[in-house]
Amino acid sequence: MKTVKYGLSALGLAIGMAATGVSMSVSAAEPTLAEADYEKAKLQYFQRCAGCHGTLRKGATGKNLEPKSTMKKGQKRLEKIIALGTEGGMNNFDDLFTKKEIANMATFIQMEPPVPPEMSLEQMRSHTKEYVAPKDYPTKPMHGLNWKNFFVVIERDAGTAAIIDGDTKKIITHIDTGYAVHVIKGTEHHKVDHAKDVGRFWYTIGRDGKVNKIDLWQTPDKMLVAETKMAYDARDIAVSGDGKYVIAGGYWPAHFVIMDAVTLNPLKVVSTRGYNTKGEFINEARVAAIYTSPLTSSFIVAVKETGQMLQVDYTDLENLTITSIASSEFLHDGFFDPSGRYFQIAANASNQMVVVDTVERKLEAIIDVESLPHPGPGANWIDKKCGPVGGTTHLGMGLVSVWGNDPIGHPAEAWKLCYEVETDGAGAFIRTHETSQYVWADQLKHPEPEVQQSVQVFDKDTHEIVKTIRVTTEPGKAALHMEFNNDGSEVWVSVWNRKDAKNPTGEIVVYDAKTLKELHRIKGLTTPTGKFNVHNRMNHKT
Amino acid sequence: MKTVKYGLSALGLAIGMAATGVSMSVSAAEPTLAEADYEKAKLQYFQRCAGCHGTLRKGATGKNLEPKSTMKKGQKRLEKIIALGTEGGMNNFDDLFTKKEIANMATFIQMEPPVPPEMSLEQMRSHTKEYVAPKDYPTKPMHGLNWKNFFVVIERDAGTAAIIDGDTKKIITHIDTGYAVHVIKGTEHHKVDHAKDVGRFWYTIGRDGKVNKIDLWQTPDKMLVAETKMAYDARDIAVSGDGKYVIAGGYWPAHFVIMDAVTLNPLKVVSTRGYNTKGEFINEARVAAIYTSPLTSSFIVAVKETGQMLQVDYTDLENLTITSIASSEFLHDGFFDPSGRYFQIAANASNQMVVVDTVERKLEAIIDVESLPHPGPGANWIDKKCGPVGGTTHLGMGLVSVWGNDPIGHPAEAWKLCYEVETDGAGAFIRTHETSQYVWADQLKHPEPEVQQSVQVFDKDTHEIVKTIRVTTEPGKAALHMEFNNDGSEVWVSVWNRKDAKNPTGEIVVYDAKTLKELHRIKGLTTPTGKFNVHNRMNHKT
Repeated sequence: MKTVKYGLSALGLAIGMAATGVSMSVSAAEPTLAEADYEKAKLQYFQRCAGCHGTLRKGATGKNLEPKSTMKKGQKRLEKIIALGTEGGMNNFDDLFTKKEIANMATFIQMEPPVPPEMSLEQMRSHTKEYVAPKDYPTKPMHGLNWKNFFVVIERDAGTAAIIDGDTKKIITHIDTGYAVHVIKGTEHHKVDHAKDVGRFWYTIGRDGKVNKIDLWQTPDKMLVAETKMAYDARDIAVSGDGKYVIAGGYWPAHFVIMDAVTLNPLKVVSTRGYNTKGEFINEARVAAIYTSPLTSSFIVAVKETGQMLQVDYTDLENLTITSIASSEFLHDGFFDPSGRYFQIAANASNQMVVVDTVERKLEAIIDVESLPHPGPGANWIDKKCGPVGGTTHLGMGLVSVWGNDPIGHPAEAWKLCYEVETDGAGAFIRTHETSQYVWADQLKHPEPEVQQSVQVFDKDTHEIVKTIRVTTEPGKAALHMEFNNDGSEVWVSVWNRKDAKNPTGEIVVYDAKTLKELHRIKGLTTPTGKFNVHNRMNHKT
Repeated sequence: MKTVKYGLSALGLAIGMAATGVSMSVSAAEPTLAEADYEKAKLQYFQRCAGCHGTLRKGATGKNLEPKSTMKKGQKRLEKIIALGTEGGMNNFDDLFTKKEIANMATFIQMEPPVPPEMSLEQMRSHTKEYVAPKDYPTKPMHGLNWKNFFVVIERDAGTAAIIDGDTKKIITHIDTGYAVHVIKGTEHHKVDHAKDVGRFWYTIGRDGKVNKIDLWQTPDKMLVAETKMAYDARDIAVSGDGKYVIAGGYWPAHFVIMDAVTLNPLKVVSTRGYNTKGEFINEARVAAIYTSPLTSSFIVAVKETGQMLQVDYTDLENLTITSIASSEFLHDGFFDPSGRYFQIAANASNQMVVVDTVERKLEAIIDVESLPHPGPGANWIDKKCGPVGGTTHLGMGLVSVWGNDPIGHPAEAWKLCYEVETDGAGAFIRTHETSQYVWADQLKHPEPEVQQSVQVFDKDTHEIVKTIRVTTEPGKAALHMEFNNDGSEVWVSVWNRKDAKNPTGEIVVYDAKTLKELHRIKGLTTPTGKFNVHNRMNHKT
């Protein structure tokens, strides 16, 4: 450890700072930014870069961007990478940032990363708001609509969630949420615990850590009933099987918070900082995914940088039992098998799918797949040869990998690759439905518009792609994320107006799940991304 | 959060640095030290101050010593406090530090605390050493001595452990250990798991994080058989009931490490950084005490600053289950009741004893006691009125508090104060034996030599002090820590040569447990503190 030298008369002084030490170097060529430029670059870094590279820039899905790495590349090379992207998966930002912003960002990432503050339970509680008092919650739906076929849709850059009636395709309301909601979850039918009014309440988590509670029984103007904030940066949320608790996970601070599901009042905060599977301490140990185990009274919390899957028992918060299941780095997103026993999650930097047995609370299997698996909501179905299977898309290549996931009925096929389907481009989301013959995969990560704007559909029996569907042809738009309606007769695909993200020029395109023909376009949405059909999410099968 | 300003031409520049933020201030009156003085003060702070005030100086048993607190007091007042101590429990250091060292320390604590580095599992493993190969371990004791009546004695400032034959009172050997060993533990008879050769192997933990393994069956020159290092600063250690694992807890880094008990190779490291019971994040969340649960296959890890008692299941390290039992700050040291079900631990800054039920893995009770309870090894016995009881001394006053600890047989008395015994001075250690009529308490913390050099003995039935024993009259020496021999016929008390700590001028005084008369003085020991009788520690009853 280098200690601090005092009394320096410093010209162009750089303060080297990490959570674990202080260093100082003096140089005439240190990067500097005016304060306003620094603050703007810091905000843009948080909004656009921290997700992949980390707030402390240690790297995760993206590369390490600490000065020790970036200073070697230098200003010009960094500007070029930020503007044009790389083949390694870095996006281009020349359509999002100005030239000056790109230059400032290149400078900013050569400076030591500022460490954001902590957030105490008391600070979180100061954000808790009640919009509708629980005693005033209606006892039955206050509208005549078929709410179990509602879709709750993230409008990412608007900071809203749209509620869309799946029967009429009408947008019922846009609800103010946190910035760039990442996931929305409601209660599901649970095998052990039984929540009241399953599917009625939905919980959003914004990238700014804001949590909102939505009541689908309310009249549209009153659907937002409560709010809190549990972090400065967050990604995922879940509701306990008994409907009593909401849990959300922070990117920063690295922790998860259990809240009262009625009031959203934060009750318990647990740090996820700790050691990775190699025994190295990770300060920025971010919560990547949180799910509720359908067969046990526990949450599954995936910690990205440490490769630890935490199974958190929610039956006693004051004497909180957590099983820390060591798996692989970096954990990202996952989904349960249809039985609800096995949680299948991408360890995308390891090119693996990790499987956890939530009944035995232990690692079940690790499946080697290809470049950067990313299943999004995931897909489970029955294969003629392998029996029950699960599948994932990949961020790094156009490929769907399919593995057996029924160790009891089909032990020989379980947790082994069954087959792969090549698609035209790398994607982020895969989806199917128990009534469907098809599996859908998007190609969001492909750089060419005609591929990025198309989704591909393959047959569960022949494993052949039966149709490539160009969802949009408009410049600056991408097709992503599929969701079936309640009876599996329709598939909804988002058209994300990435370029014109401030305006409601995005849309959802609805397809006939059998004929694969377009049925409808739902317009007036701002950057629609994830969509959650109430009935399908209440009854996890696929 | 304040961000970093660059390009400052600074005179007397101070770098404000914590694990969670960066601040910078410029002033003409900033404290400065020459580099050599800074390094010496840093080392002395670590050795003498960090235990109570914390490496990051946030305060624990001692006060907060961050610049925001110390700058207000100023150089002269700080020097006086360091030299003379305070009535609040701060020791005087005018007999340990020179005037210059006191001045430098007063300056050092007005400067921002340097943050020590992390330690990875790989770094720990690089310290693992084998002095005797496990295949060469003897299959029976290699000496004709009654090893079950050995005393393993910490020689604090010598960095050694003395092995003393309790039958002959002869020092068999001095074994090189880490700096200032805090605790030494061996395997105990366990109700569920059964180690081989119980009582044979002993494990030391140094304040420098060094772990040593001692084999009492070896010839004296070969008793040190293995070594490793698991932290830069550490306090406690334990062995699993099956004898397979050793666990040690770090003050810095704040973590615990589970090692292979045969080789001492570190297997698993778990961070204890996290939130206190108020929901505030604590970076320096130090492991204060570690014990093995006699009735379950688990360790008890007490985290000082967070007030969390971690019950760590050692049956599956890769899928590690921990129950985090929220109690009170700041946890310090504790002991089991005679049944082995309840762990009784001091939360000394809260003036409470916390009781954990290790079978139900939950908080059992909190008992309000007086100023800064500190039981050391603790004492359990039978009271005529209250039935089974436990007792503690207090660092803050001359008082032994006694509470019922048998909730099944004596529910009305359980976890309530039964009675209190006033002693002449504040102490750190209490001890008794199942065969003894008496309970012994030291008075180590009293400032006056005649009290500090005396221990007091009270009767289990009358609750009256029956004798005050002046253990030594030599200047600069203190009496502390009692241990009974194997059959309870003797009590051994340490005489700590605090002033002349570099030389073997300390001693252990042996008393007849019935007549309370002096029997023997064991000389030639350097700063003897804790003593561990093999038989008594193998068979925890009192």
